[in-house]
Amino acid sequence: MTDLTGKKIAILLTDGYEDFELARPWEMLRAAGGSPQLIAPKHGPVHGKDGHSQTVDAQAKDVDASEYAALVLPGGVVSADHLRTDRHAVELVLGFVETDRPIAVIGHGAWILIEADGVDGRTMTSYPSLRTDLTNAGATWLDEEVVVDRGLISSRTPADLTAFTAALLREFAAVPQQA
Amino acid sequence: MTDLTGKKIAILLTDGYEDFELARPWEMLRAAGGSPQLIAPKHGPVHGKDGHSQTVDAQAKDVDASEYAALVLPGGVVSADHLRTDRHAVELVLGFVETDRPIAVIGHGAWILIEADGVDGRTMTSYPSLRTDLTNAGATWLDEEVVVDRGLISSRTPADLTAFTAALLREFAAVPQQA
Repeated sequence: MTDLTGKKIAILLTDGYEDFELARPWEMLRAAGGSPQLIAPKHGPVHGKDGHSQTVDAQAKDVDASEYAALVLPGGVVSADHLRTDRHAVELVLGFVETDRPIAVIGHGAWILIEADGVDGRTMTSYPSLRTDLTNAGATWLDEEVVVDRGLISSRTPADLTAFTAALLREFAAVPQQA
Repeated sequence: MTDLTGKKIAILLTDGYEDFELARPWEMLRAAGGSPQLIAPKHGPVHGKDGHSQTVDAQAKDVDASEYAALVLPGGVVSADHLRTDRHAVELVLGFVETDRPIAVIGHGAWILIEADGVDGRTMTSYPSLRTDLTNAGATWLDEEVVVDRGLISSRTPADLTAFTAALLREFAAVPQQA
């Protein structure tokens, strides 16, 4: 049984996210004893593309990667496209990249990793439309339901969520608890 | 007065396009005597993100760049993201790139140019979220309302439409009429 007791996990997104790419990891992290926190550029509620809604726990400008054991980046083309243009969101992701904290990314979520220099030399997957952008940024792209490369867990679409959440729970459990 | 009489212009998009990035160029091309044609991966009506709708004139798989004098690529994040994954749409754009036909692109429309090898060595602009992807694909990116580089006309957002349509009419008028 995967145990994430005491581990804070940041989930970063904004309006237009892929509903189940937030809801499923959130539920699995909680079930494993972890403490997911919903982070967005704005406060208040965020709205998924298909009707899911949830209250933001903290704004990106107010938190730092050092507070968290790991990061989850859900997709949704509108959310992911917006997020990469937000300076505070990019700086938060950069904090995870620079300190080698595990990052789980699905769908279109990987765009912000391009901004945060988090894909060069890594092997990963994504929603297929990002393939060329990720390759041009230095990644090796695979068409698999989940790819794990040194703490970078990636999947393609909501159809991969079972494999994605299993892999991220395993990887997040393996890292030491943050201070 | 710009005269586009007898010139067929392809406008390529799919559902989720930025309404005015189709409607304004369409109107201006018609006013100049040109014959815009709406091309999409599918047939039937396409729907903009804010309620605009229009019937597709031809499917991407059924047309070839040689039939047209020029190409317009509207934006809209959902349309542009989908379009770059459609093989027939990419092949159509590749036809314009390889035959040096003028291309006018706005907003998120430039993603498909990355797939069609149409930005390497070119100077251009786009919606700001594409900046890193375009730069990684070999473009020089400028933050200007319109950039014209050897038949590639580019703008950032609907707020640039006046400058964008003026530039594309001028550039499209300058090319010889297709056979």
